[in-house]
Amino acid sequence: MKNGFSDRITDVPKSFIREILKVTIDDSIISFAGGLPNRQFFPVKGLQKAANDVFEEAGDEILQYANSEGYLGLRQFIADRYRHKDGLEIPVEDILITTGSQQGLDLLGKTFLNEGDDLIIEEPGYLGAIQAFSLYRPRFYPVPVREGGMDTTALARVLRERQPKLLYTVTNFQNPSGISYTDENRQSVAHLVRDRSCLIIQDDPYGDLRFSGGRRVSFKRLLTNSTVLLGSFSKTVAPALRLGWLVAPPPIMEKVIVAKQAADLHSDYLAQRILHRYLCDNDIDAHIATIIHQYNKQKEAMIGAIRDFFPAGATCTNPEGGMFLWVTLPEGMSSLQLFEAAIARKVAFVPGTPFYVDRKDTNTLRLNFSCSNEDTIVEGIRRLGESIKELFNQTGGTNR
Amino acid sequence: MKNGFSDRITDVPKSFIREILKVTIDDSIISFAGGLPNRQFFPVKGLQKAANDVFEEAGDEILQYANSEGYLGLRQFIADRYRHKDGLEIPVEDILITTGSQQGLDLLGKTFLNEGDDLIIEEPGYLGAIQAFSLYRPRFYPVPVREGGMDTTALARVLRERQPKLLYTVTNFQNPSGISYTDENRQSVAHLVRDRSCLIIQDDPYGDLRFSGGRRVSFKRLLTNSTVLLGSFSKTVAPALRLGWLVAPPPIMEKVIVAKQAADLHSDYLAQRILHRYLCDNDIDAHIATIIHQYNKQKEAMIGAIRDFFPAGATCTNPEGGMFLWVTLPEGMSSLQLFEAAIARKVAFVPGTPFYVDRKDTNTLRLNFSCSNEDTIVEGIRRLGESIKELFNQTGGTNR
Repeated sequence: MKNGFSDRITDVPKSFIREILKVTIDDSIISFAGGLPNRQFFPVKGLQKAANDVFEEAGDEILQYANSEGYLGLRQFIADRYRHKDGLEIPVEDILITTGSQQGLDLLGKTFLNEGDDLIIEEPGYLGAIQAFSLYRPRFYPVPVREGGMDTTALARVLRERQPKLLYTVTNFQNPSGISYTDENRQSVAHLVRDRSCLIIQDDPYGDLRFSGGRRVSFKRLLTNSTVLLGSFSKTVAPALRLGWLVAPPPIMEKVIVAKQAADLHSDYLAQRILHRYLCDNDIDAHIATIIHQYNKQKEAMIGAIRDFFPAGATCTNPEGGMFLWVTLPEGMSSLQLFEAAIARKVAFVPGTPFYVDRKDTNTLRLNFSCSNEDTIVEGIRRLGESIKELFNQTGGTNR
Repeated sequence: MKNGFSDRITDVPKSFIREILKVTIDDSIISFAGGLPNRQFFPVKGLQKAANDVFEEAGDEILQYANSEGYLGLRQFIADRYRHKDGLEIPVEDILITTGSQQGLDLLGKTFLNEGDDLIIEEPGYLGAIQAFSLYRPRFYPVPVREGGMDTTALARVLRERQPKLLYTVTNFQNPSGISYTDENRQSVAHLVRDRSCLIIQDDPYGDLRFSGGRRVSFKRLLTNSTVLLGSFSKTVAPALRLGWLVAPPPIMEKVIVAKQAADLHSDYLAQRILHRYLCDNDIDAHIATIIHQYNKQKEAMIGAIRDFFPAGATCTNPEGGMFLWVTLPEGMSSLQLFEAAIARKVAFVPGTPFYVDRKDTNTLRLNFSCSNEDTIVEGIRRLGESIKELFNQTGGTNR
């Protein structure tokens, strides 16, 4: 047969990151390219014991088909946590367990997007969301984010000119930029979106990894009926289990469940039971505190080394949490060219390009600080600084 | 906001089965409605040991993000099994681990179907496939299946008149009918499809559960480059893990992987490692033999009871394996009406309707025999027989 692929799959960009990660398999390369949590904090013993306990106690029940919504105990844990941490009352019926929060993006795209629908995405934005939504062929309207949150002037303009169905945000320690929305910024965004047919998707995989400052107000509080929350256990417990969740009011949940059933019937039920047991028997906040302590030290090491080794004119964000920071090179410099130079010096990162919906090259790049110890970070940033200076000396005069 | 759902999600039929299963929660009801494997055969101890072993040996590795294709060892196991069981040489690169074989259907719909594309489905057909494909809004062309396989005259007609992109088949002990395609029927189907731009999807969740007869020829052998295989561990090991697989040649796999990444990045990696360990340390064929032995006894009990208790004019299939058989009531009888009468006598089944793309009612129904012991089966069929006779006496004279 000829391969009569769908238009949607033909359009989706090839995964840039996938190609980059291939380069970084070489052990001698210091990689800031990945987006992985640090495996030294995976609660191996705790999950092993939890697995053993649920096999012992629930036997064959945990191996059978389960309901599409997910394990009630796990959904109750999530509801309780929203109550304690954010003062939000989320009925357990409004919570769906998803196969990672990535699946939440696919289900929402499926549930809401017709071809050509307008969608607001952050610029730079999470590339996994760009990829997932692309399959439903919307028109993307990127709105810049910077320190403090979304550019509300740009947002107001898009809302005036277009009829976006969805607004996708990562409000805490955003991937890729590391920036967070202030309370004031969230209120301004909510004010602009209120009374419109626009659903806010607040994706918050990193929210618990806060190094400093207090928790910010949730869009769920500001726009209760038109906010969908996405969450994940990947960064606080372990990503392999592929367990996340989606919070939506009943009329939306009813449709999302139909999409969920068609997608995979339900998420791994054994994993749900193991995770729930682990969460009940262990102090997850103490565990998270350990992760935060180390990630913060690594972030500080990276910020310090950037100050020491990068040329003036290269700036970076200083995230209050999460796993990434964002570097802006002097105007006109190419992060794709820098990538080549950096690989020659055995250090890797992700060039900014895949985080935009429409750019071939940028002067921005993402650095991950969660997966390397402090000495490695300092050495890697030193090499990267040299690469920047080298490239700057070659092209700086002409490109700027 | 107003809920501006997508057209695709608005169109998808509500899950019929979901509603029916709610009725059957009542413990006093004998249910032949479910589609579950018998939990008494779940290898609880074997999987518990495998989990313990992989936690012990691979520690943090099994909890990290993994590649989208799936665990190489598990894919190798699948390739080896195709070689031993079917004499098929499948390169490991052609195998993708999916979140249940249900996800395979969603990924194929996403990869191939534009709105309005033609798709051939069996009649009656697997309702999970109807649901998954519906989301991509194809035009369904149902082709009848009966003892021995697909109606090739009807198939030839559709192929003459339409340009179907996909032909979806469950060739062994089909859900819902229990029928199997003979080798001759497979060859006839392959002959008709050859040299056309039509991909065959051979979904085979039950193939290992064969009570009698030998393994049949795979479409993969007959139409190597235009067949996609779907497989599942749900019926042979345990469904909770949500692990299945998809086999496709490289040009197709390249696109399917893009869809997989967008859908959930990868399937639960811990579950993949536990399952692989279990499969390496245990004799899966001996385990399957135990399941087959019991399911076959249950099927025989059901067939015998149908012979004893159903009125003449109600016929059923006699599957060579799997979990279901299919009853055809006398012409003009309503299986929806029968459902009401049967529930009053505390026995449940799935009326035929959801297995057709375009019918409001039918004189057919699905019975599951994998989940009840023989005494319960005989009693349930006795009640169902009485319900049929009752309904027949009420309506038989007028409806026929």
